[in-house]
Amino acid sequence: MIRQGLLGQLISDLCALPGVGPKSAQRMAFYLLQRDRGGAIRLAETLLSASKKIAYCEQCRTLTEDKLCRLCADKSRDSSMVCVVESPADVWAVEQAATFKGVYFVLHGHLSPLDGIGPEEIGLNLLENRLAAGDVGEIILATNSTVEGEATAHLIAEMAKKYQVKATRIAHGVPMGGELEYIDSGTLSHAFNGRRQV
Amino acid sequence: MIRQGLLGQLISDLCALPGVGPKSAQRMAFYLLQRDRGGAIRLAETLLSASKKIAYCEQCRTLTEDKLCRLCADKSRDSSMVCVVESPADVWAVEQAATFKGVYFVLHGHLSPLDGIGPEEIGLNLLENRLAAGDVGEIILATNSTVEGEATAHLIAEMAKKYQVKATRIAHGVPMGGELEYIDSGTLSHAFNGRRQV
Ligand SMILES: [Zn+2]
Ligand SMILES: [Zn+2]
Repeated sequence: MIRQGLLGQLISDLCALPGVGPKSAQRMAFYLLQRDRGGAIRLAETLLSASKKIAYCEQCRTLTEDKLCRLCADKSRDSSMVCVVESPADVWAVEQAATFKGVYFVLHGHLSPLDGIGPEEIGLNLLENRLAAGDVGEIILATNSTVEGEATAHLIAEMAKKYQVKATRIAHGVPMGGELEYIDSGTLSHAFNGRRQV
Repeated sequence: MIRQGLLGQLISDLCALPGVGPKSAQRMAFYLLQRDRGGAIRLAETLLSASKKIAYCEQCRTLTEDKLCRLCADKSRDSSMVCVVESPADVWAVEQAATFKGVYFVLHGHLSPLDGIGPEEIGLNLLENRLAAGDVGEIILATNSTVEGEATAHLIAEMAKKYQVKATRIAHGVPMGGELEYIDSGTLSHAFNGRRQV
């Protein structure tokens, strides 16, 4: 009954955010209305312009409000090294590691034939154009190490081979600082198979 | 570097929400842009109109977009019973307990002389007008059981006495130091039944 009107609407719209339940949505709504209406208005305006203006980078398909994202536009990066990831969040994760100085290609998913997601849906025609143009020297496959991620990586590796482009897969294993005891057995078996002489 | 542009702005604006850190703001931003732009736009529009239109109820000072909130406007409620609470969230908490059928008065805080918050700042002049008008039969003091909440309740009880109005304090089934907003409704309903004249 009491959750009617604009306040009720605000709480229910805040519940659309991932990880936000009714109780924290209520806390957010009261906080914004009582202490930070400026912040509420700023957030609203950013949400509107982001929803309208942010689209895919023409070259790598990551999210950007420009034609080319900042990474593709950055001339100091090596555009012959293309790291293929499943999502824009993965781009950020790799950037935070700060070791990679090439460019990216974002699939926005992985192959999933049963859901009707084939090569076109994850932008592989666009990636193939870049391979055909001959300016890619190496494709680094950084899709997730799930069944679908592996299948997707495999297909892209086949495609790279067709154009005589080197394809590599990032190493999977025990995370740095990770304790063996807490690693799942799939990862552990992967780590053993991928062992190297020291 | 990479957290620039509209996406970076969106993430930083989402961090203004209570309980949202950079990591969950990032997750929210990606989620909205990739899967729920409709939800993002809806949330933005509700934020804008809520920020513009929601103000204090003229009678009880809770948050509402109308002159009178739904509770004050509800003729089936007993307007001679006035429950005094510190925040609009407390109104919701008491309503959820569903035992109280009177009306509310929201202080939006408590007395705090060191912060310059005196009787006027928590609306007590408005409450006194209602007492003087002679249509309040009982004031139920449901401020938090903190030092400031008790001091505030005490002052309001004195004010009620001046107008020969009965003042009661909700029973302390509410744990000492506990904030009303986080109390389960069973305890709250118990506390209402056990209220005593002060
Ligand atoms: Zn790009
Ligand atoms: Zn009201």
